[in-house]
Amino acid sequence: MSTPASGAAASQSIGDLGERRLIDRIRARFGPSPGILSVGIGDDAAVVPPVRGALEVLTTDALVEGVHFDLSFSTFADVGFKALAVNLSDIAAMGGIPRLALLSLILPPQISPADVDGLLDGFAEMASAAKVTLAGGNITRSPGPAVGGGRGPLIVDVTVVGSAKPRKVLTRSGGRPGDALFVTGSIGAAAAGLEWLRSQAGTTRAEPDDPLLRECVARHRRPAPRVRLGAIAGQTRAASACMDLSDGLADAVTQVAEQSGTGARLDAVALPIHPGAVQWFETQGRDPVPAAVAGGDDYELLFAVPSRFGGRFRALVQHAQGVPVRRIGELTSDREVVLIKDGRAAPLPAGFTHF
Amino acid sequence: MSTPASGAAASQSIGDLGERRLIDRIRARFGPSPGILSVGIGDDAAVVPPVRGALEVLTTDALVEGVHFDLSFSTFADVGFKALAVNLSDIAAMGGIPRLALLSLILPPQISPADVDGLLDGFAEMASAAKVTLAGGNITRSPGPAVGGGRGPLIVDVTVVGSAKPRKVLTRSGGRPGDALFVTGSIGAAAAGLEWLRSQAGTTRAEPDDPLLRECVARHRRPAPRVRLGAIAGQTRAASACMDLSDGLADAVTQVAEQSGTGARLDAVALPIHPGAVQWFETQGRDPVPAAVAGGDDYELLFAVPSRFGGRFRALVQHAQGVPVRRIGELTSDREVVLIKDGRAAPLPAGFTHF
Repeated sequence: MSTPASGAAASQSIGDLGERRLIDRIRARFGPSPGILSVGIGDDAAVVPPVRGALEVLTTDALVEGVHFDLSFSTFADVGFKALAVNLSDIAAMGGIPRLALLSLILPPQISPADVDGLLDGFAEMASAAKVTLAGGNITRSPGPAVGGGRGPLIVDVTVVGSAKPRKVLTRSGGRPGDALFVTGSIGAAAAGLEWLRSQAGTTRAEPDDPLLRECVARHRRPAPRVRLGAIAGQTRAASACMDLSDGLADAVTQVAEQSGTGARLDAVALPIHPGAVQWFETQGRDPVPAAVAGGDDYELLFAVPSRFGGRFRALVQHAQGVPVRRIGELTSDREVVLIKDGRAAPLPAGFTHF
Repeated sequence: MSTPASGAAASQSIGDLGERRLIDRIRARFGPSPGILSVGIGDDAAVVPPVRGALEVLTTDALVEGVHFDLSFSTFADVGFKALAVNLSDIAAMGGIPRLALLSLILPPQISPADVDGLLDGFAEMASAAKVTLAGGNITRSPGPAVGGGRGPLIVDVTVVGSAKPRKVLTRSGGRPGDALFVTGSIGAAAAGLEWLRSQAGTTRAEPDDPLLRECVARHRRPAPRVRLGAIAGQTRAASACMDLSDGLADAVTQVAEQSGTGARLDAVALPIHPGAVQWFETQGRDPVPAAVAGGDDYELLFAVPSRFGGRFRALVQHAQGVPVRRIGELTSDREVVLIKDGRAAPLPAGFTHF
């Protein structure tokens, strides 16, 4: 309302554009009331009918500049894509089907409308791939020099609402001693990709020459949440417990074991460490195994599978459409969480922590 | 996992405590799976049955340090209380009943566990008053000197899920020319309270001597969302449109008029300006009317009411339990939004904008 009525010049910042016009841009990008919504973007709240006979699955996760991403390593589109992807991974880990997203943007006024458009494009790309509808959200300013020097951080906080049928929810606590542990895809790639990016800080190189290492960098920027696999695992009740690898494999195995009241044993040679990560860590003179299991940002799924579920789980793997699913160990009655390597058991290296 | 196993000494920061122990504190404060939840705090996502036959109402809103609050004016408990209150106000404005909240905390590692406890206490106080269950959330670190100097901002981002019956939802767009405009409570108090606090910056005075001005300061710190009144207005379909006054009365009237395809006329003498705000603005040599209608942070409700709804709306006012509800003007077929003062119509002063 109190914003100047200027056009969107290339040099314009969103501080010039104003909140109302930013919301108009988002409505134009996503539509005011797409598909399933009774009331969409632009009212006090969104309104939507629930899925008949289903439970609601709710999660929220934020990407914070300077903590989770660096705009010299990732584009605005990458950040928008990943902010939704990490939430979809949580819904998948519960065996749910994602439906709706709320997007809470905390924007430094210095960034440009094109930057915001890029962020929305990345978000829309992930939303479209996962058939998720943007239902609403919020925009506010990130503080400038009032709190620190320079500009405040860009923060993208997303809430996703999904659905799951009763008794088809996959918690972390359903595992039992003897359940086999399986992991999707590969691990360590995002950690290796981020390390490569950091090693290039200050240079103009945006991509590694090596194609395997390029995959690692891409994994850091745009992880692929296992949306379909998680949903099918829930619907077919193919696992006793599930968790995603947002904070690394070591963290996920430890959490599932703790909450299931078990221990766990992982077999180092069975771990599906991404070949680009193996190569990167070895070049750095480091053992790839502890580096890969401790590395965060792998949005793969960890499943605990009782032997009596074997048939259902094999059917799930058939549905995985090329996503490898590897057996990496098992839950144990002994409460320790150990990694077996060269015939010796050692404590599992710690995962990523946020503080 | 990698955090030191130290006790919670008074000088300890949450950076020493670590994320896992912070989540444990929250679980201890709110319980892992209170009441209605199938799966609560501590899994990848929360799981809850929907309300039978109802629509879901979803909103998200963030409080950002240096933008929406200042820790020299508000306690951590005030911030936790208000972060939920502003979201509840959005649900009330849709005629919904709030049920669940997700709490996304972005915390500077320098703050203490006692500060986080204070924030949670304030949040819990508002949640308990509104019968809202904390279903889940997220904790991450606010960036330090990486982005600016000093520490990063404290941010409390909340999502609230509520319910409303089909055809009982109050949008902004349902108003028609001739509908009377009503507002709950009083306006201008939060803006006046914030101005008083700013006028005292650098001094040790935390409270005004004047009781009316103390009410204004309290309104800035802990607004009272009209949870019950909004829910009843929805259930009884007592209004054609509704919006909350988060960005001020001028903004709300403009939005309801624009989205309803009408104009609006407000009567300056009818405006329920808080007496402490009148006194404050007059002491500052300013006209209280434009100051109060432009001031944000009034979490009152604006209703548009067709004359044929008169009986239902009067019944609603009876249910208001002492909350005054005042007629302040009407929607018009003329698309302008004007304020009538001393017999003359003038454009409405602009509301609060976030950029």
